[in-house]
Amino acid sequence: MNKQQLVATIIGEKKNPTKQIGEAFAPANIALCKYWGKRNEQLNLPVTNSLSISLGNRGTNTRIEINTSGYDEIILNGKLVTREHKFYSNLISFLNLFRPDGICFKVITDSNIPIAAGVASSASGFAATIKALNDLFAWQLSEQKLSILARLGSGSASRSLWHGFVEWEAGKDTDGLDSFAKPLPYVWPELRIGLLLFSTEQKSISSRQAMAATVNNCPYYSLWPSRVEFAITYMKKAIIERDFVKFGQVLESNALEMHALMLATTPPIMYSNADTIAGMQAVWLARSNGVAVYFTQDAGPNLKLLFLQKDEEVIKKLFPRVELVEPWDDRCI
Amino acid sequence: MNKQQLVATIIGEKKNPTKQIGEAFAPANIALCKYWGKRNEQLNLPVTNSLSISLGNRGTNTRIEINTSGYDEIILNGKLVTREHKFYSNLISFLNLFRPDGICFKVITDSNIPIAAGVASSASGFAATIKALNDLFAWQLSEQKLSILARLGSGSASRSLWHGFVEWEAGKDTDGLDSFAKPLPYVWPELRIGLLLFSTEQKSISSRQAMAATVNNCPYYSLWPSRVEFAITYMKKAIIERDFVKFGQVLESNALEMHALMLATTPPIMYSNADTIAGMQAVWLARSNGVAVYFTQDAGPNLKLLFLQKDEEVIKKLFPRVELVEPWDDRCI
Repeated sequence: MNKQQLVATIIGEKKNPTKQIGEAFAPANIALCKYWGKRNEQLNLPVTNSLSISLGNRGTNTRIEINTSGYDEIILNGKLVTREHKFYSNLISFLNLFRPDGICFKVITDSNIPIAAGVASSASGFAATIKALNDLFAWQLSEQKLSILARLGSGSASRSLWHGFVEWEAGKDTDGLDSFAKPLPYVWPELRIGLLLFSTEQKSISSRQAMAATVNNCPYYSLWPSRVEFAITYMKKAIIERDFVKFGQVLESNALEMHALMLATTPPIMYSNADTIAGMQAVWLARSNGVAVYFTQDAGPNLKLLFLQKDEEVIKKLFPRVELVEPWDDRCI
Repeated sequence: MNKQQLVATIIGEKKNPTKQIGEAFAPANIALCKYWGKRNEQLNLPVTNSLSISLGNRGTNTRIEINTSGYDEIILNGKLVTREHKFYSNLISFLNLFRPDGICFKVITDSNIPIAAGVASSASGFAATIKALNDLFAWQLSEQKLSILARLGSGSASRSLWHGFVEWEAGKDTDGLDSFAKPLPYVWPELRIGLLLFSTEQKSISSRQAMAATVNNCPYYSLWPSRVEFAITYMKKAIIERDFVKFGQVLESNALEMHALMLATTPPIMYSNADTIAGMQAVWLARSNGVAVYFTQDAGPNLKLLFLQKDEEVIKKLFPRVELVEPWDDRCI
């Protein structure tokens, strides 16, 4: 099965839109137990489950209008995206999966997180796009089905359909129809996320390439699936028990393990820069001084801190550049 | 078998010295294929073979005198070492293995490499000590036997008995009598080493502790032995063929794998600091610009560069703080 066939299975025959505009917001998300490695490159089918937390009001708002001018336009954060840009071709390829011939779009997309710097911009981007298409074409699909479709844009987008804790189930089927995310029935209102953005430059190697290299050229990768399975089980237990230290230990270890696998890949892949390492050391120093703060890191140099509301002020002092996120803020979910 | 019994097997009964002074120099060495993990903590028996290169005239000179004052004295780089210092207790414990009751020493040891900062100071230190004792007591032991005895002070000291390339064979026997190093019959006069010393502070966690933690608490460690075996085979081939790129790739990968295992240990161990990462990135940038330079890293933040004589000037320009070492300099070997 290819992408187009999978889409047909879910939305049926391509239809014309029933209205002029579709619009939606989707939050970015951070994997606490990472998605690293695909069992099917084409359909973005992962080797393992993954567990994330969404970033509240940090994410992407996308508005898709029917464009009668006869060509596609993409406006990202107020700027026209040229056809040469990777962002343009990625988004157009995705839109092509869903629209009938002859329909052109004007896509106005606004993201309040950095693009392609390992801050999950593609996750919220593709999730917002699929929700906007669902609105525009009036498919009335379930979130589960939208999760499958978002996954075709970017694996982690499958988790950006919901707020809070989300688990993406790897599934087993070759058609990918059983590989979708679902919200977990746990809330933790005191949980806070701190974004430590050292660089908003684009990555030197995409997560797609880095993942494939790790799967193919890291001799230690064979042990990763059982490690993630263990981490997810352990983390759910920590969430249910509201055991923040256990929660923090498993999320930090899981991130370091993922980056360790990349370091042990031939040739090595390192997303950390000097700021990243200094940031990690600052986190470890804070912990040795009794502040319960843990970090995770994705396919970029930035760190994401996890801590509890009670430590918000001390975290702001220790990390003056930190950007605070409240995942369960009523104003955004 | 314990240390004392192993020593008795090799030197026989403890005898009084035949002269007043014993003195020797031993070079530091850098593992190109790392020693990481012990199968016997007490006897410093390694899990795997390891392959090193000695640092020419960088190392330790140790002079051991009979001290008639009735107590031990240790002078390190011109300064008296107090009894509370770990250096004192480590060296005295080692000396106690070899001397009969009633003999006191004045040890004058000079090292031209930083102590305990992952620059193999303990390797050259214990190797120089055992050679000085061999001189003092006139044991007339073979270098192979001295290698076994040096190993009891610090595993990597077993490799500091020779210049050039050295392989330490892990051995299989429980008594450790088959675990010693031997010089490899290859020279590579154009090979250069550059020390990039970012910190000469003592390590936050000793390599002994870090090794034990990795063996016990890193889920990926089980694959390490076969990786080192592969690296050593591959590296010997590269040395014989004088294939510097192959040589560089395997040494850098092996170091990164070792540090990856530490990152994936619970709790994580990281010897790198921000300077280390910036240094790695500078090496990778140099390579992308056509300069064949590779790094290795041990239990500390410092990097050791490997390159060829022809690139000496460009390396000095790219890394102004680099300290050059010529392993096969006639003046020192």
